[in-house]
Amino acid sequence: GGARGALALYENFPHEDLTFIVNTGDDFQHLGLEIWPDWDTVVYHLGQVQEVSRGWGRRDEGVRAMEELSRLGAPDWFHLGDRDVALHLFRTYQRNEGVGKASLCQAICRRFTITARVLPASEESLQTGLLTEEFGELSFQDYFVKKQCRAKVCEVLHKNASQVKLTEGVYEAIADCEVLLMAPSNPFLSLQPMLEIPLLWEALEKCRGRKLAVSPLIGGRAVKGPLDSLIETLSPLSGQAAVAQFWEGRVDTLLLPKDEIADIEDSSLEAKPCHTWLKTPDDRQLFARDFKEALL
Amino acid sequence: GGARGALALYENFPHEDLTFIVNTGDDFQHLGLEIWPDWDTVVYHLGQVQEVSRGWGRRDEGVRAMEELSRLGAPDWFHLGDRDVALHLFRTYQRNEGVGKASLCQAICRRFTITARVLPASEESLQTGLLTEEFGELSFQDYFVKKQCRAKVCEVLHKNASQVKLTEGVYEAIADCEVLLMAPSNPFLSLQPMLEIPLLWEALEKCRGRKLAVSPLIGGRAVKGPLDSLIETLSPLSGQAAVAQFWEGRVDTLLLPKDEIADIEDSSLEAKPCHTWLKTPDDRQLFARDFKEALL
Repeated sequence: GGARGALALYENFPHEDLTFIVNTGDDFQHLGLEIWPDWDTVVYHLGQVQEVSRGWGRRDEGVRAMEELSRLGAPDWFHLGDRDVALHLFRTYQRNEGVGKASLCQAICRRFTITARVLPASEESLQTGLLTEEFGELSFQDYFVKKQCRAKVCEVLHKNASQVKLTEGVYEAIADCEVLLMAPSNPFLSLQPMLEIPLLWEALEKCRGRKLAVSPLIGGRAVKGPLDSLIETLSPLSGQAAVAQFWEGRVDTLLLPKDEIADIEDSSLEAKPCHTWLKTPDDRQLFARDFKEALL
Repeated sequence: GGARGALALYENFPHEDLTFIVNTGDDFQHLGLEIWPDWDTVVYHLGQVQEVSRGWGRRDEGVRAMEELSRLGAPDWFHLGDRDVALHLFRTYQRNEGVGKASLCQAICRRFTITARVLPASEESLQTGLLTEEFGELSFQDYFVKKQCRAKVCEVLHKNASQVKLTEGVYEAIADCEVLLMAPSNPFLSLQPMLEIPLLWEALEKCRGRKLAVSPLIGGRAVKGPLDSLIETLSPLSGQAAVAQFWEGRVDTLLLPKDEIADIEDSSLEAKPCHTWLKTPDDRQLFARDFKEALL
């Protein structure tokens, strides 16, 4: 949802006005590589090189590196496409050479001819733990990829959020923006991890701009991913009401499908109708139109 | 030549009797990866996964990772196939995790179902410098790949050979062997670097077995690579006579094409006829037959 929302803004607003702050809670080290799944997915979308059918990864991607890693007995639970590997490898090398995170991101974006800023939220990855009924504590990737979200999550643990530094440019981008839009992503797994960073929270408090969120639910259900079951166990409410409760006190306005506005009538948030299905360029234009409308 | 010679032995002798000691003078770090071109080439040949037409690299290899590295502005003068990258990545990761070189090599060989030992000569890579007329001193890869050997070499510098340690098992394999065969490789670039390691030399002196070398020249010329021009500038002799002079005092016997035996009549080496063209399985069988004959 986050990457598709980002693409909708990118296609319909002046690029120089846009800064995307991306979750670093999925980032991890694997086979010595720096892997940033959310940042890559946003960059692949904005660079129009994403595999459209899947929502992650590259178009015209290959499996030869992965075949060889399997042959060699390397862990193969996390899929690495041949093009992915190159990006991870380049990034890891540059980082080990001491290149700063923000300038590295800018350089990569330039190579994908992306003319907006795409900043990982924090310098360090956010270590997210999932306390599950079946397996005890799992790391994010263990839960999300290894177990394919097949575990009942009792609690989300933000293990190092209070220690991490924001990536250069993030504080200013948030504190000084006119409009802040929270993406239609999983609130518990993709947004809360960032909101747990004290400096990010401080920037949000400082920000005098409009603050809006987009609900990731359509028809009261997650389009994909484990959000439905997370709401069930982590929220006293359900569907859009649960999403609204998550955002209360944090944003002013929640964008959601028109015929679901009634679902959050108990919320203190202002509800605005929005086309939130983000598949085609037309969808994304409708989203941008409704978003502009909501700002009036 | 070395990899094809190794395959000829592998196809025609009991595997448990064979240990291949491979040059580490081409090894280097690139984009943070441990790259061992000679060792990989031997393993790809013995594992029968090599690209036959080229003499290096993998069959059914892909270029996606390389395309992306180029896109990202990473150095692209050294070609990395998608399958190559996986091997380099796995090896680098394992080495950084502290896995020993010999046991890592054994594990990789097992995954390629190779049942002989293939040992890199040294724990550290051999830093070979080429003093050239045109560019001054070049590193091995700069000379071999970047400049494609287009430089007149005045001298080969063995920069750290006296400091490196042999890989576990190499000393014993050489000191205790019954027959030692020097591969039909470039003497200056693939064999001399190993011979500069004092401990390897000590093992050779200790070895009471038969010592033979195979000339890499056919019809007095290199099959490929820069050997012809290296002989021209580095040796007072030419063709097979130069190769023979290189091996004098180091081996007893030189194997070379039958009608070129007369070319080394001034040498103290015993000359034995050998089919040294190593393209097809039949070629390799003829080589093995002549090698056995020479041992009688």
